Amino acid sequence: MAIQTAKSPLAASTKDGKKIKEQEKEAHALGMTKKKSADFLEWYYEALQKADVVDTRFKAKGFDVLMPTAMLVMEEMYKLLEGALRETGHMPLAFPVVIPESEFKKEALHIKGFEEEVFWITHAGKRKLDERLVLRPTSETAMYPLYSLWVRSHLQLPMKFYQAGRVYRYETKMTRPLLRSREIFWLEAHDIQKTKEDSLKQVEEDMAIFKEVMTDTLCIPFLPLKRMEWDKFPGADSTYAFEAAMPDGKILQIGTTHDLGQRFAKVFDIQFLDENGKKQHAYQTCFGPGVSRTLGAMIGIHGDDKGLILPPAVAPIQTVIVPIYTKESKAAVFAKCGEVLGWLAEKDFRVHFDSREQYTPGFKFHEWELKGVPVRLEIGPRDIEGGIISVVRRDFLERTTVPEEKLAEQLLEIMDSITFQLHKRANEMMLIQGAENFSDLKSRLIKGGFIRIPFCLNEKCDEKLKADTGAEVRGTLFGDSSKPHAGAKCAICGKPARAMVYVAKAY
Amino acid sequence: MAIQTAKSPLAASTKDGKKIKEQEKEAHALGMTKKKSADFLEWYYEALQKADVVDTRFKAKGFDVLMPTAMLVMEEMYKLLEGALRETGHMPLAFPVVIPESEFKKEALHIKGFEEEVFWITHAGKRKLDERLVLRPTSETAMYPLYSLWVRSHLQLPMKFYQAGRVYRYETKMTRPLLRSREIFWLEAHDIQKTKEDSLKQVEEDMAIFKEVMTDTLCIPFLPLKRMEWDKFPGADSTYAFEAAMPDGKILQIGTTHDLGQRFAKVFDIQFLDENGKKQHAYQTCFGPGVSRTLGAMIGIHGDDKGLILPPAVAPIQTVIVPIYTKESKAAVFAKCGEVLGWLAEKDFRVHFDSREQYTPGFKFHEWELKGVPVRLEIGPRDIEGGIISVVRRDFLERTTVPEEKLAEQLLEIMDSITFQLHKRANEMMLIQGAENFSDLKSRLIKGGFIRIPFCLNEKCDEKLKADTGAEVRGTLFGDSSKPHAGAKCAICGKPARAMVYVAKAY
Repeated sequence: MAIQTAKSPLAASTKDGKKIKEQEKEAHALGMTKKKSADFLEWYYEALQKADVVDTRFKAKGFDVLMPTAMLVMEEMYKLLEGALRETGHMPLAFPVVIPESEFKKEALHIKGFEEEVFWITHAGKRKLDERLVLRPTSETAMYPLYSLWVRSHLQLPMKFYQAGRVYRYETKMTRPLLRSREIFWLEAHDIQKTKEDSLKQVEEDMAIFKEVMTDTLCIPFLPLKRMEWDKFPGADSTYAFEAAMPDGKILQIGTTHDLGQRFAKVFDIQFLDENGKKQHAYQTCFGPGVSRTLGAMIGIHGDDKGLILPPAVAPIQTVIVPIYTKESKAAVFAKCGEVLGWLAEKDFRVHFDSREQYTPGFKFHEWELKGVPVRLEIGPRDIEGGIISVVRRDFLERTTVPEEKLAEQLLEIMDSITFQLHKRANEMMLIQGAENFSDLKSRLIKGGFIRIPFCLNEKCDEKLKADTGAEVRGTLFGDSSKPHAGAKCAICGKPARAMVYVAKAY
Repeated sequence: MAIQTAKSPLAASTKDGKKIKEQEKEAHALGMTKKKSADFLEWYYEALQKADVVDTRFKAKGFDVLMPTAMLVMEEMYKLLEGALRETGHMPLAFPVVIPESEFKKEALHIKGFEEEVFWITHAGKRKLDERLVLRPTSETAMYPLYSLWVRSHLQLPMKFYQAGRVYRYETKMTRPLLRSREIFWLEAHDIQKTKEDSLKQVEEDMAIFKEVMTDTLCIPFLPLKRMEWDKFPGADSTYAFEAAMPDGKILQIGTTHDLGQRFAKVFDIQFLDENGKKQHAYQTCFGPGVSRTLGAMIGIHGDDKGLILPPAVAPIQTVIVPIYTKESKAAVFAKCGEVLGWLAEKDFRVHFDSREQYTPGFKFHEWELKGVPVRLEIGPRDIEGGIISVVRRDFLERTTVPEEKLAEQLLEIMDSITFQLHKRANEMMLIQGAENFSDLKSRLIKGGFIRIPFCLNEKCDEKLKADTGAEVRGTLFGDSSKPHAGAKCAICGKPARAMVYVAKAY
């Protein structure tokens, strides 16, 4: 893979033959200056800019430019998610990005939920359109009129399609690059089932895919929370949100799956002939794993004061080779680096040999640490003599040496270990506390994370919570059937509690 | 790769254990009924629908749903094009799909060229936007304000970025799925150079990429035509269009590359410090290979009365294995098919074993021929006994047998041969005629294709040609420096000719 480095527009550029001192100054300008623990958002913005992830200077509010680092990582994320969806029988489609107003407005709850946050196309050229078009905020109302034409018989079911792409939401809250943007990169899978039970199985399959990719591979733990009735996806029977905890204690929804029941099938007339030749309305589910949001979570959760730390599974460069040489040793060192590059490329590692001569090794170390490359190899004349290679892992920045002939094997182990450690750190960072009353809840909210409370299930209490603290009830934990203990009181109003719910402040 | 077949929504569905006669009826409904030579467009529409390429029933004019066959082929097309762009030093980016009106209108010629064909976003939620947003028809005015911030020094140049995505044009001509749509899938590369010479080299590199992918790999020949002054991309110094000939004699522009000179650099203030520390305006080029349009061209050019014929390089399934068995031989035949699947998958063929038991082999043959799978393998008890495999290639529908142990090797040869033959057929189909006067030109236009004429270079003649015939001057052939013979007259007005140009009717 061709990797542009010095030409990266957000990094500094340099001149051939520049003096070491100037380079050091440059390395400093290139490197991080903000501390993650001091101010997460300041650190986050600096990391996005310096590691070539996002340029926030595009002149439409809430719309950002995704730079090469973002694109290359998202490419790997899409491969993982699309791979998992195809393995579970989903086929790709692409629906238009626009939806005619008449279709968009067919489902009353749906339009009510979205009408405040959609972009409207009203004109083309100098003409007013006969019918306004909405820039899709999600694709139910684009897809289901066609599903109505496609679905005929129970033999076709389940019918599973997905599309990878962008959706648009006119966020009125403060926008944040990747985390809360008006242009969102995601996938949406829309499935048709015969029965409610099949729908529930699909919801579980969606969750399993999400956990496999997001947690097991990208090291982002999340809680699957079933949203309160008043906080569901507009038109859904049930909404399950996948919520990650960010380092500043706020929560980020990085995906959802919805059990849509038969509501949309009735509105859009999606029916099938069952085994007895009788017409039935279909059951539907839809699953929306976030890609740009999850990238934001990944950067925020794993990064450190040196920059990004990318999980090996999605790092565009998994291993960078930096040569350490003098004029005399250059030929031998470059030859060995090329040899190692060949071995590793053959084993399907994504590996890059940083052969730029105008930079010192120290400058290169800085740059690749900033960009989050999981493993750095350093090869110099003494390593060659000893038949060893120096290895530095990005998570602990620890140096070790590996015998040449064991390199590929140990590299795999080191990458597994990095994945394991990122996962472990992220788990430790995800704070889950408990609170029994409002003052306890409020004081725990200062630290952030999730707070589990007994709750009366009354929307008014959620409103009071929001007004008083900015936090909200995010839902009940999927698969957790434990009840409040006997006599437990709602932590907000003190009336009898009916369920255990999770409270958090969200992006 | 999981491939849904019987569940394909545009194909017929069937019942387990259905009788052969019903299956035959179904195979007929599934199969093509239109003849390509009788009415190309009728054939084209039927092929799109039956081979699961496009559903044209989306309720916004000019916007279509791309079905799995389209998505899977385009996925391979994007891989090829992105691979070639990365090898030539381009890095991926994603700019927003919207452009603020003030940026869009900065370059006067550009806005003049596009103002009739852009979609306008004027409202969000119930509010009127402070500034209207345009749905990008192309991304110069989105990208170049940022380029102005990125470009600093000659050391960064050339700077090469591309984005893969969709653009939107309010086509007022008759829309056609894939060929002329309001939502276009493409890539756009935007490069910054130091000098005009570097720009011209970039134009040649773009053409080489285009030829390598579109012609050498996808078997679509094209003419690179330099557009007339009055027909250039709005704001460009020169426009080179890549034009393919469709079976009905009409021409389809499947890509362009533009030499933008310094016009945009001056408007958007893109400057760099040259070797002498002096500020210079940059030179720019942009390259837009079409993906959805090229898919339309590929289907139209290669297909036959049985359906699609996909070039092996982009066929989602390159080889399908169809078992031929009785109750007694089933176990042995399935085992052998699985074995062959394993051999071929290991050699990185995209191979599918069609193990569906409810269909006859004949039904399966029909379906995979319709979908354009390049090679079909048939394995039955007699083949197993003889240690051979029956092979049918999609282009000639010829059956041959191959010894088991030579299968992988010969399959490669057969796929190369299919590529070669598709290329040859397409070349033969691309009609290029000559004409010296208007009546000759008009009569040759009946057959279609390109007609090379001496031309006076006067726009008025192009207008007359358009008004009289619907055809137009498409440009001069890139790299062809031959002049009209001495005393040659313009084939339209009879005045002295100044250049040889190509005339055609276009989609």
